[in-house]
Amino acid sequence: MPVLHQMQMSGNCYKVRLAARQLGIPLAVKDYGLHDGATRTAEFLARNPNGRVPLLELDDGRFLPESGAILWYLSDGTRLQPQDSWGRAEALQWMFFEQYSHEPYIAVARFWLAYAPKEEFEKKRPLVGEWHAKGHAALGVMESHLEKHDWFAGGRYSIADIALYGYTHCAAEGGFDLARYPAVTAWLARVAREPDHTLLSETW
Amino acid sequence: MPVLHQMQMSGNCYKVRLAARQLGIPLAVKDYGLHDGATRTAEFLARNPNGRVPLLELDDGRFLPESGAILWYLSDGTRLQPQDSWGRAEALQWMFFEQYSHEPYIAVARFWLAYAPKEEFEKKRPLVGEWHAKGHAALGVMESHLEKHDWFAGGRYSIADIALYGYTHCAAEGGFDLARYPAVTAWLARVAREPDHTLLSETW
Repeated sequence: MPVLHQMQMSGNCYKVRLAARQLGIPLAVKDYGLHDGATRTAEFLARNPNGRVPLLELDDGRFLPESGAILWYLSDGTRLQPQDSWGRAEALQWMFFEQYSHEPYIAVARFWLAYAPKEEFEKKRPLVGEWHAKGHAALGVMESHLEKHDWFAGGRYSIADIALYGYTHCAAEGGFDLARYPAVTAWLARVAREPDHTLLSETW
Repeated sequence: MPVLHQMQMSGNCYKVRLAARQLGIPLAVKDYGLHDGATRTAEFLARNPNGRVPLLELDDGRFLPESGAILWYLSDGTRLQPQDSWGRAEALQWMFFEQYSHEPYIAVARFWLAYAPKEEFEKKRPLVGEWHAKGHAALGVMESHLEKHDWFAGGRYSIADIALYGYTHCAAEGGFDLARYPAVTAWLARVAREPDHTLLSETW
């Protein structure tokens, strides 16, 4: 059975759990602590030189890091990945958008405001304004898409929605008021109504 | 003929030109200035609400942003995209790595040190140390892969190499000394020997 090396509170790891659950893919889970440096040990770095989770370990000993790549691999050929070339391009458009223009502000604000030790956060406090400005810009891009579309790629629920849901649904923990984005709020509710939806807090 | 909305000096736009050239895909090119706000006009934002290039415009009026998604779309079904599921996952692993752990430091250092107005750069100077630390970490991850492999995905030259080549080959402009990375340096030379290779400076 594949092993997901993960942190429970990480939205990037949650995306993988959610997709695997909805696809009926069995996983074992190995948990790492948030603050214990467990992904920077020599043993971990031999598996992923970039020192991050999620990291998927296959039965034959191969390792795959990067949440977007793991989502793609698990959903290849399934209903959660668009089957036509343009739909796949749309899915990747939004998955790259999420990792470049959304996660570095919305996930990072959540981490520092809600999960980091208070004295560590004080050093980062001058950055909160930039996180909020750029995070709201990303939410605005999502809002403008969702005013005209129910889903992000291929006209149906897919890994692109899962990738964006991961940190959008808990953005309030980073100080973002989602009430300003009615189309985003309606989409969050649609995602949560999909069969076999699981919560970030739910253990595997 | 598809139109590539682009900036000539942008590595993200160069990646698309390089892949299109090597695939024999005809493109028209529409150039934007670096400092003239041309990607923030209402007209541009109607095409890409995220206000960025590269942006691919298809003949039928559809638009595709995000260099990684454009590379994927153009290379779908070609020799530049791995044809097996694991190879595709490897390609995306490195393309997401590039956009999350490499580009925000190596491309950003290049922009501010080599292309931004000098007085603007002065405001960013305190960040140079972090850009260099995290950029060198990314180069170290590449080096450790390239010590054991000639290419990043699927055992052959692919869009994953193009994605990483875009800003690695010009990292010296951002103050990175690539002589510290012999495997990366040898890979840069391998990429440059591929048929129909083009330079970032080469106009379309």
